[in-house]
Amino acid sequence: MPELRQNPLSGRWVVLAAERARRPRDFARPQPAHPVSERDCPFCEGHEAQTPPEVLAYRAAGLPANGPGWTVRVVPNLYPALVPAAAAVAESVPLFPSRAATGAHEVIIASPRHVASAADLPLRQHELVLRAYRDRYLAHQREPGVEYVHIAMNYGREAGASRDHLHAQLFALPLVPPLVESELHNAGAYHAKYGECLLCAMAREELAAGERVVLENDRFVVFIPFAAQSPFELWLVPKGHEPRFEAQDSSGEALLAATLREVLVRLAGVLGDPPFNYWLHTAPPRRPVDAYYHWHLELVPKLGIAAGFELGTDMMINVVCPEQAAALLRPSGAAAALQAERTAAE
Amino acid sequence: MPELRQNPLSGRWVVLAAERARRPRDFARPQPAHPVSERDCPFCEGHEAQTPPEVLAYRAAGLPANGPGWTVRVVPNLYPALVPAAAAVAESVPLFPSRAATGAHEVIIASPRHVASAADLPLRQHELVLRAYRDRYLAHQREPGVEYVHIAMNYGREAGASRDHLHAQLFALPLVPPLVESELHNAGAYHAKYGECLLCAMAREELAAGERVVLENDRFVVFIPFAAQSPFELWLVPKGHEPRFEAQDSSGEALLAATLREVLVRLAGVLGDPPFNYWLHTAPPRRPVDAYYHWHLELVPKLGIAAGFELGTDMMINVVCPEQAAALLRPSGAAAALQAERTAAE
Repeated sequence: MPELRQNPLSGRWVVLAAERARRPRDFARPQPAHPVSERDCPFCEGHEAQTPPEVLAYRAAGLPANGPGWTVRVVPNLYPALVPAAAAVAESVPLFPSRAATGAHEVIIASPRHVASAADLPLRQHELVLRAYRDRYLAHQREPGVEYVHIAMNYGREAGASRDHLHAQLFALPLVPPLVESELHNAGAYHAKYGECLLCAMAREELAAGERVVLENDRFVVFIPFAAQSPFELWLVPKGHEPRFEAQDSSGEALLAATLREVLVRLAGVLGDPPFNYWLHTAPPRRPVDAYYHWHLELVPKLGIAAGFELGTDMMINVVCPEQAAALLRPSGAAAALQAERTAAE
Repeated sequence: MPELRQNPLSGRWVVLAAERARRPRDFARPQPAHPVSERDCPFCEGHEAQTPPEVLAYRAAGLPANGPGWTVRVVPNLYPALVPAAAAVAESVPLFPSRAATGAHEVIIASPRHVASAADLPLRQHELVLRAYRDRYLAHQREPGVEYVHIAMNYGREAGASRDHLHAQLFALPLVPPLVESELHNAGAYHAKYGECLLCAMAREELAAGERVVLENDRFVVFIPFAAQSPFELWLVPKGHEPRFEAQDSSGEALLAATLREVLVRLAGVLGDPPFNYWLHTAPPRRPVDAYYHWHLELVPKLGIAAGFELGTDMMINVVCPEQAAALLRPSGAAAALQAERTAAE
């Protein structure tokens, strides 16, 4: 059974999920990453029997569950890092803090077809994927013991995707993750001091400065944070104060899908379809933090390696100026970079 | 000039060192990792002119600096993430916290020969490398403004080593890194409550439990922490209370070298010479924490990928039980694993 353990010195929690591993010694020779063809892919339409039974699928009325005809499909992860409460046990003793890894771990399949490039996903599918995020958020937040729902997409093998078929993952967690706790703490302190939401202020100041802004529309701004932890880190932030992703209306959802798609297309154009991770940060369901927390999406292309400095200090080294990176991702910047490349190739 | 920037929401610091990068757009197509032959390696004996002038080298008396005849050599990093105070400038404005990245960044070359396998480094060289760590620690801790000295080894391209020739890196920092601050906080709280050093207690309890212990000798214990963040994470800890790595006597240093070498040989044997990072955590020079902080070495083989769960939550998923991993790294475990492999190959 998976288990949550905490290191008393560092304070760090880990999800120990040994069921997800091959035999320990297999780590000696990591398996090469083979792309799986459409024929063998369990996420493709027509192969529904190869996954656990679905927990959500969008398909035309009247079609049976766990068969073809869907647009987005959500299934439990076959090797879950978190399990239902009834299955979980853990014994905590002094100096060895531990608790049951209760919750859920799901896979959100972004398309019935074998779309392996994030920039190729049609706008309509992006909208449905975001709707699935919201629907599963709402389902899990109602469950007792769920303190946070984390949704993330890993794109590309180098970013940890185990399959090429585009998909996201959802983790229903029995605790608020440390990074979200830090954000809550800092946003709460800022609000107490200035009476304003910190991310509202950050978005406003980024728009005023302009040099790190990648795109802006009626409801969202995408910028590279001033203290970007790695090259081309991107934050997608609602311009108005919105504490909770899952409380968004459908017009917001449609514009969010278009905004996210535009970011992915630009990234692919400028960086050559890089591997990336993105995830949502939203207000935890059971915390009265709506006055000062502000949901957002963070996207980090996998362009570097966390090594002995980063792992041992919990600080990153970023070798690309956020201001330069943002310029490249603005339409004019991308066009200029492409032109420079064509000229160089001639 | 490199600069330290802080994200107000996450609280995270980043070292922005754009001088270390190729052009931003080069991230589109990462360079393949070419091993460099002895002939072209700037770290090899005889090629001293290819590095900045040395800041420390152990060689026979009478031999000139920056020439052959050395055993361990320390040079400034050609692309430093931190620079001397005189060169550093940074302007901090509200919502964009920033400070100068003052300090030093050095490379500790572990051998005059092109040793590219960590398990192949002779014991005598390990001793000299540790002595160089101590000598450079002491030199930097005397400098005004240095709040911490971080020493780390990246081994293997997948672990971030830019060159095959075995080397470590030293970072003199103008702040105590967040991970060390967390350890200080937790160790201080434990000491206030129980009147005992937390890592003394953890080492004692790990020895009592036994199942995660990899090796033990007169002065050191090596174990896989109960809440190991990743497969085969190892902590090398003095059994007695020692706050500061750099205060160690020469017999401790010799046994530490032998202990570290034994760990590296076992890792190579069991996991097939995996890439890894190790780093030292020691009491910050200007903090009165000797009663409760306890130096140690943390070693993490690079066997997984931090993806959207890990990056977005600041929690890890570990897929190998610490107890199983430790059994494999004990002499009997390694022998059994090797035997099983031979049998399987027959």
